[in-house]
Formats: sequence, structure tokens, C-alpha cells
Amino acid sequence: MENFTTAIESKNISLALANKMLEAALAKGQELGIPFSIAIVDKPGNLKAFYAMDGAPVLSLEIAQNKAFSAAAYNRATHEWYDRLKDDPPLLHGIVHTPRLVIFGGGYPIKINNELIGGIGVSGGHYSHDMQVCEAALEVLKAFESEE
Amino acid sequence: MENFTTAIESKNISLALANKMLEAALAKGQELGIPFSIAIVDKPGNLKAFYAMDGAPVLSLEIAQNKAFSAAAYNRATHEWYDRLKDDPPLLHGIVHTPRLVIFGGGYPIKINNELIGGIGVSGGHYSHDMQVCEAALEVLKAFESEE
Amino acid sequence: MENFTTAIESKNISLALANKMLEAALAKGQELGIPFSIAIVDKPGNLKAFYAMDGAPVLSLEIAQNKAFSAAAYNRATHEWYDRLKDDPPLLHGIVHTPRLVIFGGGYPIKINNELIGGIGVSGGHYSHDMQVCEAALEVLKAFESEE
Amino acid sequence: MENFTTAIESKNISLALANKMLEAALAKGQELGIPFSIAIVDKPGNLKAFYAMDGAPVLSLEIAQNKAFSAAAYNRATHEWYDRLKDDPPLLHGIVHTPRLVIFGGGYPIKINNELIGGIGVSGGHYSHDMQVCEAALEVLKAFESEE
Repeated sequence: MENFTTAIESKNISLALANKMLEAALAKGQELGIPFSIAIVDKPGNLKAFYAMDGAPVLSLEIAQNKAFSAAAYNRATHEWYDRLKDDPPLLHGIVHTPRLVIFGGGYPIKINNELIGGIGVSGGHYSHDMQVCEAALEVLKAFESEE
Repeated sequence: MENFTTAIESKNISLALANKMLEAALAKGQELGIPFSIAIVDKPGNLKAFYAMDGAPVLSLEIAQNKAFSAAAYNRATHEWYDRLKDDPPLLHGIVHTPRLVIFGGGYPIKINNELIGGIGVSGGHYSHDMQVCEAALEVLKAFESEE
Repeated sequence: MENFTTAIESKNISLALANKMLEAALAKGQELGIPFSIAIVDKPGNLKAFYAMDGAPVLSLEIAQNKAFSAAAYNRATHEWYDRLKDDPPLLHGIVHTPRLVIFGGGYPIKINNELIGGIGVSGGHYSHDMQVCEAALEVLKAFESEE
Repeated sequence: MENFTTAIESKNISLALANKMLEAALAKGQELGIPFSIAIVDKPGNLKAFYAMDGAPVLSLEIAQNKAFSAAAYNRATHEWYDRLKDDPPLLHGIVHTPRLVIFGGGYPIKINNELIGGIGVSGGHYSHDMQVCEAALEVLKAFESEE
């Protein structure tokens, strides 16, 4: 029998971790005093956990989910897109139309020991604020990284 | 100035209450040993908070959200629809095709002192299980009802 | 019981007020001699009242509704977006693709005493005309502002 | 030159008539004490005028528009569908899935002298209530029928 792979192992963020990340994001949002929507998706980009802070703009609900989706579905933080597009006109005028793809800050892959397990997306402020909220949530991951 | 109402007051579920309900639903889900998706929406049916338990079927993500939407958007528990439809063939063959409307159990309006403030939807088991999870979450509301 | 907020109060535009605003917009549209679509949404962005003037372009029906949605869903007049985007290339090339978000003039939040209660959107002329129609409708609100 | 038709004349409901019909529907809705959504579309089924009464269920916004669309787009009252479907299983199980087609009461063609000029749709109560509201609005047309 040849060496044959029937299935690929993957890891997906647990609800327990997603919940800790939501709580950290919420605390940062309260500190900033801006009502954010916060979305966490699993590795294939499906919704895992979500909070809309009281007063979050209606428009932020979908943008937060799309940022989390974009980050997990391409394993790239959303703020890293523009630098790769700006000198490539076909992409700059083309790929930005991809449904659910967000190319501005506020979406990050979630990784443990450099392995992708999901994505987080935040919307509600300028993307520089949204990024701060994501980064506060990503701090949670450090406690779970193995030392090598 | 004539007697004229410029705006209608309404109430929407807070994230604090949504979070308590999610936690109660999660505890019930763990007790039943079934991985559920649990969605909470505000009064106009927009997503407020969401958990997918580890292993929840992909299909349950959207059904849970649609149940919560249905319950809030018509102020009716989803399991109450079928009795109203079963002897009314135009509705039974017609209204069931309404986008996002779910007519089987697992979606409930969220009310405080009989005022609608949102909806909860659960999916992942048979709808009889989904209903048990919702009901556990709705127990949380009793602590906040005012006595009269 | 702990200090705990179960629900957030909000206000939504009444049909009576929406109707007065539609009539004022219609009068302005007739004065300008351009057939407009005029949409009014409630605070969460759902359609409250709508007129398409005779001869309004088919495309204007949806744009007017999207402008009203954009204004209510982010609490910002649609003509205020471009100044915030023009020197921020990731947003300029990115957020403009958000479904239903309009970033040119003709959509305004509807506020009473500075509280958001809905949105109005107008389409059919150049956006400078659309804005004039909105502004005529917003004049109606002044009669309902409380003096302080 | 052969006899050749370059264009087909059609008539579309005016905003003036749509407005009169909305007002008649609103008065009937207030009399019944149920908050309805009321939609009027032109002959090709595009939205012409719309009111959501205060408290109308979120779900009714889209259903009312779909009923009006169905009535104009097929020149048939929505309550007339079921009798034509019930003994024709391929239609009963098939055509009901057509997007935007409603097969229960509450949508009527709008005709002047038997010529289709638009459609009206109402949602918010049982369809028997929705039909009463439509019928009140259709009464308005009688004043504009020519005697022969």
C-alpha cells in the first residue's frame, strides 16, 4: 500500500479560549469607551463566539464577522492586505470586491504555537481602535504558548 | 403644538444579560452532552451574543441565529407556529418559505415584565433538546422580573 | 441584587414623524423638479416609510434605502465619510465595499434632542440635490426639539 | 414597412394614488388595532410607497413588500394561489419556493378600469386581517373608475 493520506488534521479554537478572548476584548473596549462588535471564528471561518457591546453600531455587526472571517480564511491580519495591494493595480481594484474580504485593520488570525486555529474581528471605532481591542484579546494566547 | 408622538420607546437586551443567558444555556448544553449553537438577538433581530459549543454542527450556526431572529421579529416562540399553521394550508405551504423564519422549536422571545427585549435561538439537537437549552437560559430572567 | 442593566432604552422614529418628513421631502423634490426616491428607516436601519416620486430612476429606489440605512446604522451623514477616507487608503479602497454602505451625500441621521431615532436617504439627482431634499425634511424636526 | 411595434405602453400607479391608498390602509389598520406593514409597488413590482405602523413586527416589513410584488408581478391576488396549487402537487411543492412569491392572503393587484397599474401588500396580522386592510385601500380606486 502506498503512503496515502485519508484526512488532514486541523485544530480549531475551543469555546473556552474564545470566551476568554471575548472577555479580554470586552475589557479593552470598556477601557476605550467605544461600543465594539467582537467576533471570533474557527479555522474554516465559521462563527464561534460573538459579543455586540451595548450601543455598537448596526454596521459593525457584520464588519466584525467579516474581519474575523478574512483573517482566518487567508491566515493574514486584515491590516497587512493594503501594503500588498497598493502597487498591484489589478488586485487593488479587483480583489477588494471579494465578498466578506476586509482589507483594513481589525482582523487577526488566532494561532497557538504558530498554528492557525481561528480568527478574531473587531469593528466599531476607527480601525486603529479596533486593532487595539484585537491585540488585547490576542494577549490571552501567550499563557497557552508552549516554551521550547 | 398638537399632540404628536415623534418617537417610540423600546428596550433592547443588554450584553450583560445576554452573557448570563449564554452561560446558563451552555451549562444546560453540557449537562445534556450535545454540542449546541446558541444565539441571542436584540429586539429588531440583530445578533447580540453567540456561542458555538465545541463540535456544534455547521448547519446549527445559522439555524440558531434564525430561530432567535424569528422569535424576536414576530414576538412568538418558534414552536408555537405549527399549531397555527397545521389547519391553514395556504400558510402551511406558504409562510414556511419566508427567509429566516423557523417554525419548529428552539426559538423564544426574551421578555422582561412581559416587554419584548430580544430573542434566543438554539440548534444542535432535536428541537425538544434545543427547547430545553432555551428554557434553562430563560430561567435567568426570573431574577430580574419586578414584583407587582 | 447587584447593579445590573438588563435592557438598554432606545427611541425609534414614529410613523407620524416619518410621514411629515416624507411630505417635506416631496415638496422640496417637486420644487427642484427632479424625481427622487425618499426612504426613512428606524434606528436599527429597518424601513419605516418610503416614497418614489413619479419617474424616479429604478436605481434610486435601492440607493435611497441604503443611504438611510447607512446614516442610521453608523450615526453619520453619508457625505461625512469621504473626508475621513480620502487620506486613509486602506479604508478608501476597503470600507467602500461594505454592503449597503453609501459614502456620498444624501443620507442623514434623524435625531431629536441629539438622540438618534432613525435615518433618511434620498436618491435621484446629483448628491448635492439629494442633500437639499434631506435637509428640507430635517427642518421638520426643529418643531419638536425641546428648548433648554 | 411592415406593421412593427417598437414599444408597449403601460401605466404605473402614481405616487398621489399610492399615498391615498396608504392612508386608507393606515386608517383601517388603526381601526383594527394591529400594527401592519403596508407596501405599494408599481406595475413591474418595484417599491412605490411604504409605511410601517408603529410596532409592526420586523418580519412583516419584507412580507408586505413580497406580497405587493407577487400581486403585481403575476397580476393575481396572493390568496388566489392556493386553490390553484392544491391539486397540482408539482406546483404545490415547487413553485412555493420561488423567491418573493407569497401564496397566502394580503397581496392584491391594483387596477384602474381593469388595467394593472401596481400591487399592494399588507402584513402584520393573520392574513384575513391583512386582506381587510388591503380591501380598505382598494376602495379608494372606485372614485377613479370611469363609468361606461
